[in-house]
Amino acid sequence: MNEAKKHVVAIAGLGVVGGGVVSILEAGRESIARRTGVEIVIAKAAEKDAVKAAEAGVPPEKVIGDACDLIEDPSIETVVEVIGGTGYAREFVLGALSAGKNVVTANKALLAEHGTEIFKAARENGVVVGFEASVAGGVPIIRTLREAYAGDNIRRIVGILNGTCNYILTRMSREGVGFQDALTGAKARGYAEADPTLDISGTDSAHKIVILARLAFGEDFGLDEVYCEGISGLETVDIEYAAQLGYRVKLLAVAKKSGEEVGLRVHPCLVKDAHPLAHVDGVFNSVYVEGEYAGETMLYGQGAGRWPTASAVVADLIDVATGRAGTLSFGEPRGVLGVKSMSRMLARYYIRFQAIDRPGVLAGIAGVLGQEGISIAQAIQKGRREGQSVPVVIITHEAAEGAVQKALLQIGRLDIVTGKSVLLREEE
Amino acid sequence: MNEAKKHVVAIAGLGVVGGGVVSILEAGRESIARRTGVEIVIAKAAEKDAVKAAEAGVPPEKVIGDACDLIEDPSIETVVEVIGGTGYAREFVLGALSAGKNVVTANKALLAEHGTEIFKAARENGVVVGFEASVAGGVPIIRTLREAYAGDNIRRIVGILNGTCNYILTRMSREGVGFQDALTGAKARGYAEADPTLDISGTDSAHKIVILARLAFGEDFGLDEVYCEGISGLETVDIEYAAQLGYRVKLLAVAKKSGEEVGLRVHPCLVKDAHPLAHVDGVFNSVYVEGEYAGETMLYGQGAGRWPTASAVVADLIDVATGRAGTLSFGEPRGVLGVKSMSRMLARYYIRFQAIDRPGVLAGIAGVLGQEGISIAQAIQKGRREGQSVPVVIITHEAAEGAVQKALLQIGRLDIVTGKSVLLREEE
Repeated sequence: MNEAKKHVVAIAGLGVVGGGVVSILEAGRESIARRTGVEIVIAKAAEKDAVKAAEAGVPPEKVIGDACDLIEDPSIETVVEVIGGTGYAREFVLGALSAGKNVVTANKALLAEHGTEIFKAARENGVVVGFEASVAGGVPIIRTLREAYAGDNIRRIVGILNGTCNYILTRMSREGVGFQDALTGAKARGYAEADPTLDISGTDSAHKIVILARLAFGEDFGLDEVYCEGISGLETVDIEYAAQLGYRVKLLAVAKKSGEEVGLRVHPCLVKDAHPLAHVDGVFNSVYVEGEYAGETMLYGQGAGRWPTASAVVADLIDVATGRAGTLSFGEPRGVLGVKSMSRMLARYYIRFQAIDRPGVLAGIAGVLGQEGISIAQAIQKGRREGQSVPVVIITHEAAEGAVQKALLQIGRLDIVTGKSVLLREEE
Repeated sequence: MNEAKKHVVAIAGLGVVGGGVVSILEAGRESIARRTGVEIVIAKAAEKDAVKAAEAGVPPEKVIGDACDLIEDPSIETVVEVIGGTGYAREFVLGALSAGKNVVTANKALLAEHGTEIFKAARENGVVVGFEASVAGGVPIIRTLREAYAGDNIRRIVGILNGTCNYILTRMSREGVGFQDALTGAKARGYAEADPTLDISGTDSAHKIVILARLAFGEDFGLDEVYCEGISGLETVDIEYAAQLGYRVKLLAVAKKSGEEVGLRVHPCLVKDAHPLAHVDGVFNSVYVEGEYAGETMLYGQGAGRWPTASAVVADLIDVATGRAGTLSFGEPRGVLGVKSMSRMLARYYIRFQAIDRPGVLAGIAGVLGQEGISIAQAIQKGRREGQSVPVVIITHEAAEGAVQKALLQIGRLDIVTGKSVLLREEE
């Protein structure tokens, strides 16, 4: 134990995750030193809330109020940023990097929105940014992309990256409850925040896929380049119909390379029952990766929560302390790959129309689809109520998003069609 | 590209995997250098078969016949061992380590049987052994255990580690075919070797769980400490009955810590439909890990085959070349944890008896189980044929293996019981 090399860190934020990091480091001091040869020493912490600081068990004399003051301390080699947000956290992280300190962060919004300047600052100062905890908590996707795929070529990443949405969709699917009821249940169990907008709008998943896509493809994608559609408009009936056709409905975040372009999108998707992502249920996260050599791999685990997230932060601290994190940061963006526009995206589509039950209805809809070059794999009229509105479900063969959207506009104008049609894309 | 640091390697064996490694390194020279800052240079290769050497595309002047001659070359920093077997490969690996060369190997048998002396030699010579490819091919389980769990405490590892067995079980389950037919099909598709003994006996899985358990628990377990039962005795009828009860049958390799002991075992298991391992089908591999902090995680992917395995070898080479592999080798065994004997293992059991359909049969069986302290959760008599032999299926509550085995012996002696009973354990 004596020969363990000390690595001095400070923790900015002693909330749920920060407190967890302190606990793991305290409880694991000996075992971490034994396994890795390093001892991680918490020199200081920053927390304005005295109660949280006391709960975290950091001695009061080590706790300061203003995180930016940690930057002044030359003994601190690495700071952990678990403050959250993109304002003060950005200032703190950039300050720490400029002062030559490594940064370990769980802040996906910060990296998705300000990653470019943060990774540039890290490169310029010869320090590293560890961010395993920023995507899918306890799922080691960052180190997998960085290390296991270092010699491979990634073709596609498909993630279930938001536990709140996945929990809601699982309940809608298993119990047939509506979106609002499932959301209320998620809040009651602490799986959704009081204001769940960031989660259910898909924005949180978009943050994460931007981070993964940058790492996988070596380019600097922006949040505004992600097509993003949340789950609040989903109806239970479509989840049921999809199930009858052998599909599950999941909110997926996708980054897919085709030629010299990468498509980036977050939206509810149909996945076949046999797909490994189909059975990722409840609050769990999962990332499916397709590589040229490794083929299909999938990582699954707890995407959020105190301990999984804190565990990922500690793993990053160990990487930094052992020097293994030398290649942790993003390299310079290559500037080679473009972003594929959504309208040129190819997929199979599930479309539900509300249409008057009358001879010739399907012919009318199919005619418009045909004009746009979209062929139909399956068409099902659900129920019979002559002269009244019934659902018609169509599964297309592969088609371009642009053509499908154009067809939907025209179909919406047909007098046999009574309501707004519902569109879901299949992800293979 | 100019500043990429060169790392000189030699490849011993230009067969399926070795040839794949050469291809990936050739095709990826630039992208690997750009991403990692290192250029991996193949200085030499050893291959006795001239045809294989030519197919691998290594210039003839770089190919020698005897791998051990590679050891003499001081320019070689790292050797890749993809010779296979535990005789010559052991000699080669120990020689290379003694000569101060790092070793990257895909050889699970070698590491399971001679890991102790190999890792000792690596420690003594200050070099590293990379072995990601030795367990579950393209699934990055080694680096996950080593890095992502460096600050966590692993409680249990459960793996589907043999693609041949998983393919056979998937076919038996989906198509209702018998073991022999499924095996024949696996051979025809190249998923089983001409002599499949190592796979279907569970030995290959035992090799792999020994490697994972050493890494997870920091102890030096031996192959003879693994309880091992293969799949050749499995009957389709039990897979069907299990399915009716909501279970899938999988060959699992388990390493589980309880107190200061680790239980190590390979045998067919019942897993509930909702378990993430239940839907790992076909030749895929998967490893489920339970950590104190990270909670449940699972990794899934291709466990064998040229490209996934070669991709894992290349990832290890990059780790070694970038210096990230400093903590790759096993540390000194701790000598703290013992091995839990199989008889004290606790599980729920599926037991199928063949018994005469006569009043009082179940009472007789249940009576013996009760005497051994085993309580019954479910008992089902399959079909009715008075006075003739019918299957009786019992699911127990949690019980100790020793007690169950004792009860089975006694039940076998009852005159109402006509055949050998079938025992399957549930893994939660």
